[in-house]
Amino acid sequence: MPSRSLIPFVAGLVGFGASIAVADEGMWTFDNVPRDLVRERFGVRIDDAWLDHVRLGTVRLSGCTGSFVSPNGLILTNHHCVADCLDQNSTREKSLIESGFIAGTREKEIDCPTQIADVLERLENVTAKVQDATRGLAEADAKERRRQTLTALESECENTSRSSGNPLKCQAVTLYDGGQYWLYQYRRYDDVRLVFAPEEDIAAFGGDPDNFQFPRWCLDFSLLRAYVNGAPAATPRHLTINFGGPEAGDPVFVSGHPGSTDRQLTVAELKALRDRELPPTLLRASELRGRYIQFAKTSDEANRIVADSLSGLENTIKVQRKQLDALLDDAVMAGKRDAEADLRMRVAGNRALAAEIGDPWQRIEDALDEEATRWLPYLYLEGGTGLNSRLARSARTLVRAAAERPKPNAERLREYTDAFLPRMEQQLAAPVPIYPELERLTLSFSLERMREWLGPDAPIVRRLLVNETPDALAARLVGGSRLADPAYRMELWKGGQAAIDASTDPFIVLARELDPEARALRKWHEDNVEAVIEAAHEQIARARFQILGTSVYPDATFTLRLNFGSVQGWIENGQPVEPFTYLERLFERATGAQPFRVPDSWQAARSTLDLGTRFNLSTNSDIVGGNSGSPLIAADGRIVGLLFDGNIHSISGAYWFDVDKNRAVAVHPAIIREALTKVYKVAPLVEELGLDK
Amino acid sequence: MPSRSLIPFVAGLVGFGASIAVADEGMWTFDNVPRDLVRERFGVRIDDAWLDHVRLGTVRLSGCTGSFVSPNGLILTNHHCVADCLDQNSTREKSLIESGFIAGTREKEIDCPTQIADVLERLENVTAKVQDATRGLAEADAKERRRQTLTALESECENTSRSSGNPLKCQAVTLYDGGQYWLYQYRRYDDVRLVFAPEEDIAAFGGDPDNFQFPRWCLDFSLLRAYVNGAPAATPRHLTINFGGPEAGDPVFVSGHPGSTDRQLTVAELKALRDRELPPTLLRASELRGRYIQFAKTSDEANRIVADSLSGLENTIKVQRKQLDALLDDAVMAGKRDAEADLRMRVAGNRALAAEIGDPWQRIEDALDEEATRWLPYLYLEGGTGLNSRLARSARTLVRAAAERPKPNAERLREYTDAFLPRMEQQLAAPVPIYPELERLTLSFSLERMREWLGPDAPIVRRLLVNETPDALAARLVGGSRLADPAYRMELWKGGQAAIDASTDPFIVLARELDPEARALRKWHEDNVEAVIEAAHEQIARARFQILGTSVYPDATFTLRLNFGSVQGWIENGQPVEPFTYLERLFERATGAQPFRVPDSWQAARSTLDLGTRFNLSTNSDIVGGNSGSPLIAADGRIVGLLFDGNIHSISGAYWFDVDKNRAVAVHPAIIREALTKVYKVAPLVEELGLDK
Repeated sequence: MPSRSLIPFVAGLVGFGASIAVADEGMWTFDNVPRDLVRERFGVRIDDAWLDHVRLGTVRLSGCTGSFVSPNGLILTNHHCVADCLDQNSTREKSLIESGFIAGTREKEIDCPTQIADVLERLENVTAKVQDATRGLAEADAKERRRQTLTALESECENTSRSSGNPLKCQAVTLYDGGQYWLYQYRRYDDVRLVFAPEEDIAAFGGDPDNFQFPRWCLDFSLLRAYVNGAPAATPRHLTINFGGPEAGDPVFVSGHPGSTDRQLTVAELKALRDRELPPTLLRASELRGRYIQFAKTSDEANRIVADSLSGLENTIKVQRKQLDALLDDAVMAGKRDAEADLRMRVAGNRALAAEIGDPWQRIEDALDEEATRWLPYLYLEGGTGLNSRLARSARTLVRAAAERPKPNAERLREYTDAFLPRMEQQLAAPVPIYPELERLTLSFSLERMREWLGPDAPIVRRLLVNETPDALAARLVGGSRLADPAYRMELWKGGQAAIDASTDPFIVLARELDPEARALRKWHEDNVEAVIEAAHEQIARARFQILGTSVYPDATFTLRLNFGSVQGWIENGQPVEPFTYLERLFERATGAQPFRVPDSWQAARSTLDLGTRFNLSTNSDIVGGNSGSPLIAADGRIVGLLFDGNIHSISGAYWFDVDKNRAVAVHPAIIREALTKVYKVAPLVEELGLDK
Repeated sequence: MPSRSLIPFVAGLVGFGASIAVADEGMWTFDNVPRDLVRERFGVRIDDAWLDHVRLGTVRLSGCTGSFVSPNGLILTNHHCVADCLDQNSTREKSLIESGFIAGTREKEIDCPTQIADVLERLENVTAKVQDATRGLAEADAKERRRQTLTALESECENTSRSSGNPLKCQAVTLYDGGQYWLYQYRRYDDVRLVFAPEEDIAAFGGDPDNFQFPRWCLDFSLLRAYVNGAPAATPRHLTINFGGPEAGDPVFVSGHPGSTDRQLTVAELKALRDRELPPTLLRASELRGRYIQFAKTSDEANRIVADSLSGLENTIKVQRKQLDALLDDAVMAGKRDAEADLRMRVAGNRALAAEIGDPWQRIEDALDEEATRWLPYLYLEGGTGLNSRLARSARTLVRAAAERPKPNAERLREYTDAFLPRMEQQLAAPVPIYPELERLTLSFSLERMREWLGPDAPIVRRLLVNETPDALAARLVGGSRLADPAYRMELWKGGQAAIDASTDPFIVLARELDPEARALRKWHEDNVEAVIEAAHEQIARARFQILGTSVYPDATFTLRLNFGSVQGWIENGQPVEPFTYLERLFERATGAQPFRVPDSWQAARSTLDLGTRFNLSTNSDIVGGNSGSPLIAADGRIVGLLFDGNIHSISGAYWFDVDKNRAVAVHPAIIREALTKVYKVAPLVEELGLDK
C-alpha cells in the first residue's frame, strides 16, 4: 500500500463525503470519535487524555503515517514508506532498497531529502468563517472566494503561531464535502533521517504477487528519526510498543492518515470513474509497467534504477484494477443508486431544503458532461499525463512559481501559496538522482500516448511531434537539460521570472510555451467543473447533515483519523482465514528467487530464531492508502502492530466498507523484536526500544 | 483491421445470433440476401447470376478476405493481410514489411507458407440432420452428439466430393446460434504466393495512431497469386476493377468474411465480457505492448523482429478498448436489456413455447456463474494465456495431435478432426522464423502474469516457478528446445505418440505434463458452460425465429456474407466528414518520421503524380475484422474499392450497428492505379490488370 495510492488520480472528481458508521467502519476525526460506541462494543473507555496521547504520538509523513517510539525522535513506519529515501540515497551500483540500511550510530543516520514529519498539535473549526465569506456567490466566484479565504486563514494562523514563539504549519482542511472547514496545525520536522531499513526481499517478501494479499510474511518496517537543529528531536510524548502483540478478537485502534476515499461520490461521479477515468488510466499504467520491466532486463543497473518506480506502479495498478472491479459490481452500484435516490426523495419531500439546494445531483452530472468535452486535452496538458518526466515537472513548477510567487498570497494558484512553498523548495533543492535513460523512457511513452489519445492532428501534437519521433524529442529534451542538477533548479527558483525568461533549457522553454494553454484549460476546469461540483457537494452535505444527523464520518482527506476494530480473519470461499501468520511458513514458502527470496541475513540467523513467532496479522480496521505505517494501538495506548497493507477486498474500501471481508494487514511486533535482536542485532536500537530489558 | 481482431478472445462466450435488419445494417448469407430491400433502397436488381459472380470471385484467406482480379489467379487483398507472409520471408537484417516486395516476374513470386485461399462453391443446409440427431438429449450429451454429427457430415461431404473428381473442403457452419447448420464447401488453394506489396510506410501511413480513424491515407493493398500444381490457377470467374471508383451516394456491396460479432449475446453474456473478460485482457495486452516497444528500442534487429507482433497487438488493443467503451455505455446496455426483456415477455406469453424452452436466459446466467468458479485456471492453462509462446503452442499441438489422430475422426477434439488436419500440418511444416529472444519475452511475460492472477500458491505456479524465475524458466525452455526447426516438428508429427513419448524437448515434456489438467478443465468447461450456453442459444434462436420471422441475418462467423450500403461520410462533433480523401494531403501530413513517413518511392515520384487522386473512401457498410481485403462492389458487379478498416465507431459493431456513425474505410482504386503505373511501374501487373489500355 505504498504512498502513491494516495494521489487522487482524478482531478476534479475527488468528492469529500460523509458516511454513517456501520459495524467497525469509520475514519473518525479526533474531535468526533464515537466514544460511546467504542465503550459499548469493546468496553474500552476513550477519554481526552487517551486521544491526546495517541494524536501527539502519531506522525504524518510524505504520503504515509508513522509514530514516535522513543523520546529521541525515533519514528516507526513501513519499509515501503521510506522507499523514496532509500532510492534517493542509492546509486547505479548500489541500491539501498536491495541491501537495506543500518546506520548503527546516530552520526551515520542519513538524510531523507524529501521527507517531512508533521504532528497535529491543534484543530480549529473555521466553517462559519468560510461559509460566511462565500454566501450568495455564484459557483465560480464562490470557489475563488473560498480559495482566497482559506489561504488568508492559513497565513493568519501561521503568523499568529510564529509570533507566539511556537511556529506551526497551518493547513486548511475541507471535510464532509464542504460541510466543515478546519485549520489543522502541525508541528513540522523537516530534517528527517533514516535509521534502519531491512532488505526489500524480507520487507516486501512476495512482491507484487503478494501485495494486497493475506496470509502474508512481510517485515515491512523501518525507523526514521526527526532532527531539530542538527540534534535528535525531543519527543517525550511518544508511544511505547508492546512487543507481545494482541490476541485474536482484541480491540485495536488505528491512528493515521487515510489518503482518499470516494464513499460519498454521486452515482454520476462513480460512473465517470468507471467509464471514463479508470480504464484508460489502467491501460497506460499497464503499458508503462511493461516498458519498465523490459527496461529492467537490459542490465543490473537498469534493474536497480527502475525498481522503485516499478513497485509503486504495480501497486497503483492493483489498486485501480480492484477499484474498477468494485465499480463494475452492479450490486454495489445499485446500492449507491438506491441510497442516492432515497436521499433525493427526502430532499424533495422537504420543501424548504428543496427550495434552497435544488437538484445538486443533476448539476454534478451536467458538470461531468461538460468536463467530458475537453477532458483529454485537460488530462494530457494541465494534468501532465502527456509529459511524464521528473524534469518536465520541475520545469513546470519553476515556470509557474516564477509567475505566481510575486503575486499576493491569496491571489496565487493554490499550490503556490505560502503554506506550500517551503515543501516545494525542499523538493526542488533535494539532491535526488535523476537517471536520463529513465526520463527518456517515461517521456517518450507519455508523448506517444498523447499522440494516440489526442490524435496526430491535434495542435499540441503537431507542434511537438511534427518533425521528431517521441524518442527523438525525449532524447533531445533530456539530453539538453540541466534540470537534473539541484543547483541549477535553485538558481532558477531564486532568479524568478528574469531567470526563467533567460533560460534556454529545453524543458523550461517547452514549459513556457505550453503554460498559457495549460492554464486556460485549468481555468475552464475550475470554473465549469470543479466549482459546480464543489458547490453541489456542499449542498448535498448540508442535506445529509440535516436529514441524517451528525453521527457520521467524512471521506478520507490525508488528515488524522481514528478507527476502531479488532484482530480478526475472515471467510474466503467458505474457508476461514486465520488472523496470524508465523515465521516458520516464510522459510517454507521461499523459492530462492525474487520476489520469494529470503535474504542471507535471515538464512544465516535461521537456527537462532523462534519459528513460532507471529509475523503478520489481520484486523477489520477501516483503512486506505496513507494509513501505511500507522500504529495499531491497544486499549492501553500501547502499539501492538504496524499497519502496512489491506487484503484484496480492502481496495473496494475506496467506495464502500465490506464488513465481512475488508481487512487490514499489519506487521506483528514480535517479528520486529526477533529481527532487531537476533537477525540485525543493532545494539543501540535494541536499547532505545527497550528490547534489552 | 488486421486479422487478429477475428480471433474470438472469449472461449465459451461466443454466441451466434440473429439480428433484424435496420437501414443498411446486415451481414447476409448468400442464400438469404434481401433482394427486395436492395431494389427498394437502391433500385438495384440482384439476381442469382450476380450473386454467383460475386461469390465465386471472392476468396477467403487466413483471417481475411480477397478477390480474384485476373484470369490467372491474381488476388487483391490488403497489405496487412499479407503481413504474416512478409514477416515469414523476412530476416533479422531485412524486413519485407518495411521494404515492401515486388516480384516483377512470376518466377520470383514467393511462397506464403501459411496462407490458403478458399472459394465458396456450394452451400448445403443440414439443419434437420443435426437437430434430429440431438433431439431429446441432455445438454452435455447433445453437445457431444452435435460435434460428432457435424464431423461425420464433413467427412461424408469430403469423401463424396473427392470421389466425384471435384474435391472440396467441407466445413460445418453454425448460424443463428444453432438455429441453422450448414455445410460450406470450398475450393481450396494451398499454394499461395506473394506478388506485390508496397512499403508499410505507405500501406499503413499513420500507423496505430491512425488505425480505425478516417480521414485516412493508407495504400493498404497487396497482390497474391493462387497456384495449382506449380502453375498460376485458372480463375476465369474473376472480378474486374473499375479504377474510376464510385461517387458519393453510390450503392456499394461488400462481399467478404466478417469474423465475429456478438450482437445476439444475452445481457448476462455482455456483462461477463464487460466485467470479467475485457478489463484483464486489455491490461495484459497493454503490458505486452509496453514490453514489445521497449524491446524494439534495443536494436534495429529487435525492432524488425517484433514489428508485426506489435502492430497486431496494437490493433487488438484498440478494438477491445472500444468494445469495452461500448459495453460501458449504459444506453446501449439498456437497449439490450429492453430487447431481451421484450423477447422474454413474448416467450412467457406463448404457453407452448414457454413450456418447450423454459428460461434459457437464466440458464446462460447460471452457466456463466459456474464458469466464473474456474475461469482463471481455465484461461491460463487450457486457454494458453499462461504460456504465450509459439514453441509452447507447437508443443501442445503436437502432444495433442499424437493422442487424437489415432482415434476415429468423430471422437477427436474438434480441432483435430480430418477437416482441420491439413491446415495444421501446413502450419507446423512452414519454415517461418522463430526468434528466441521474442519467445523468451512473451513466455516470461505470460508466466509472470499467471503467477499474478492464479497466485503464487496455486499448484501449477508452484510446480513451474518454485525454483526458477519466469525469465530463467523461459530461457531454459526456449534455449533447450528444437521446436523452432520445422523438420523436428514434422518428425514429431509423423512419429506420433511414440515420438512424443520419447522426446526430451523441454516444451514437449512440459506440454505432456500439463495436458491432463488442461484437458480436465476443458471437459469441465465444455460440459458445464459451453453445452449449456449452446443449448440455451439454440432455444432463444428458435423463439426468435418463431416470434420475429426469418427476415434476419446471423451473427458473423467468418463465413461468406454480403452487405449493401453506400458511399458516405458522417457527422462528427457537429462537423461533416467527407467520404473521400486525396493524395495531396498525404504529403502535407507527412512528418518524415514513422508512422507518418512517406517512403522514398513516393517522394521520388511525387512530381509525376496527380495530387487530386482519391486515396481512401468511407461507406456505411456493416463490416468487422475478417472483412479486411473485401472487394467493394458496384451494382454492375465491378470492384470499386478495397475495404481495409472501419472508423472508430465501427468497433461497437461487435454489439450493435450505429447507423449514424459506423463507417467502413476502403482504398480507392484510383490510388492503386496511380501507385502501379507511376510509382512502382510494374509492367506485367499493369498489363494483367488492364491498366495499360
